[in-house]
Amino acid sequence: MKPYTHKVNYYETDKMGITHHSNYVRFMEEARVDFLDQIGWSFIDLENKGIASPVINIECNFKKTTTFPDEIQIEVYVQKLSALKLTFGYIFTVNNEEVFSASSSHCFLDLKGTPIILQKAFPEFYEELKKYVRTNIIK
Amino acid sequence: MKPYTHKVNYYETDKMGITHHSNYVRFMEEARVDFLDQIGWSFIDLENKGIASPVINIECNFKKTTTFPDEIQIEVYVQKLSALKLTFGYIFTVNNEEVFSASSSHCFLDLKGTPIILQKAFPEFYEELKKYVRTNIIK
Amino acid sequence: MKPYTHKVNYYETDKMGITHHSNYVRFMEEARVDFLDQIGWSFIDLENKGIASPVINIECNFKKTTTFPDEIQIEVYVQKLSALKLTFGYIFTVNNEEVFSASSSHCFLDLKGTPIILQKAFPEFYEELKKYVRTNIIK
Amino acid sequence: MKPYTHKVNYYETDKMGITHHSNYVRFMEEARVDFLDQIGWSFIDLENKGIASPVINIECNFKKTTTFPDEIQIEVYVQKLSALKLTFGYIFTVNNEEVFSASSSHCFLDLKGTPIILQKAFPEFYEELKKYVRTNIIK
Repeated sequence: MKPYTHKVNYYETDKMGITHHSNYVRFMEEARVDFLDQIGWSFIDLENKGIASPVINIECNFKKTTTFPDEIQIEVYVQKLSALKLTFGYIFTVNNEEVFSASSSHCFLDLKGTPIILQKAFPEFYEELKKYVRTNIIK
Repeated sequence: MKPYTHKVNYYETDKMGITHHSNYVRFMEEARVDFLDQIGWSFIDLENKGIASPVINIECNFKKTTTFPDEIQIEVYVQKLSALKLTFGYIFTVNNEEVFSASSSHCFLDLKGTPIILQKAFPEFYEELKKYVRTNIIK
Repeated sequence: MKPYTHKVNYYETDKMGITHHSNYVRFMEEARVDFLDQIGWSFIDLENKGIASPVINIECNFKKTTTFPDEIQIEVYVQKLSALKLTFGYIFTVNNEEVFSASSSHCFLDLKGTPIILQKAFPEFYEELKKYVRTNIIK
Repeated sequence: MKPYTHKVNYYETDKMGITHHSNYVRFMEEARVDFLDQIGWSFIDLENKGIASPVINIECNFKKTTTFPDEIQIEVYVQKLSALKLTFGYIFTVNNEEVFSASSSHCFLDLKGTPIILQKAFPEFYEELKKYVRTNIIK
């Protein structure tokens, strides 16, 4: 799994001179999209199959500030995988120093908004995700 | 017509310490939505009638910087109105001093993406817009 | 304490047709700024006194989707207040229905980046914040 | 000069299902930063030398919609270069089809906000920019 790189844009900074904290949630989405691309279950394919995966929870820990034009390396992994919920973990580093860690939890819904049991509806996707589960991460 | 007020948010500033220029395009949309609400043809009603009004051109003149927590007063008017195109004008002031002026041009499309002739399809809307045409604005 | 209102903007929606989740973190900041204004310790005054209050942690629970042009009522309160850390709580409602809840933790730094003990450096601010501590919130 | 690529992010779309128009102004900045990096006069170096280059005018023509996850190729060139003003031109294509064109004008200011005559203050930068002037672009 190749880490995703986000180069901080000028418009992502604020008057404190640092990357505005709200943008990290966007970088998490970018990295998640890239992760799904890499494992062959891209976001847009899921959408085209009629599956939405709304965010139900996010948790973010800001450790060091970043700013334009830092290059942030983002590592994504699966933190938890259950019948109805998928939790991604994220580790952001700049020059090998951790600047941020986070998690995001998602459910899966069909076009009518009914929750999908991933393991039943898309067993190959479920099995693929299982490969990236990491439990011993110390944040 | 009551001017629209946008209070600059912290997250709208950049590391130069000023409101990032891209955000003015968003404030233009906010003010345009408010203008349409005030004349009784709200954006969401147009959408529900199956009309989209994509932006085809914008032009922006940045005159003075603004920053958090400035209150920007935004005046919207109709700059041009033709069979297929509507151009809004915008004047942004802070404490009665002009900081920015702009225009945005829009066409109207039905659900299939076919251009709508506003005067035919929605004559009342067209007539209402005509009331706000101002031609002698000196920018 | 008057709740803060954020009217969802068109540009805050995404192709799922709903308010993009990253924007809630921005609405939290708007409401926090308004809360500090209301208690007489506005953000910009703190900055002018040389105090930065970076976000160190956020936690967000998405319960119902919102979209343009929903009006979100945002209630802010103090969840925890200690020597070095202030945690705000947020409850977002649309038409009296809870759509989102969150918390954000902040530290206080002087111009050199040294942590400030709020109770010592700004006892009046600390005492004011204490009035808004709520412990029995059930999320 | 290598064109800059921006892959449209999910959070950059709106409820019309397309890239929100305000984001193009941000992509212009990304491409401009990359252009300056490529010619060896990076934005951050200019800032560190005490030069600000605020945007004074932008003009945008929206031709075709784009959406997640389109890859936009952005070509930047110098449209006009005078004593006090630099105008960049931008051509955005997706799969070799033009979707957007734009220009942005900038002045140069020193730390006190006094306009800088680029040709005098930074003759090498001025000469470098001159190499990228293109006058026969038909938009």
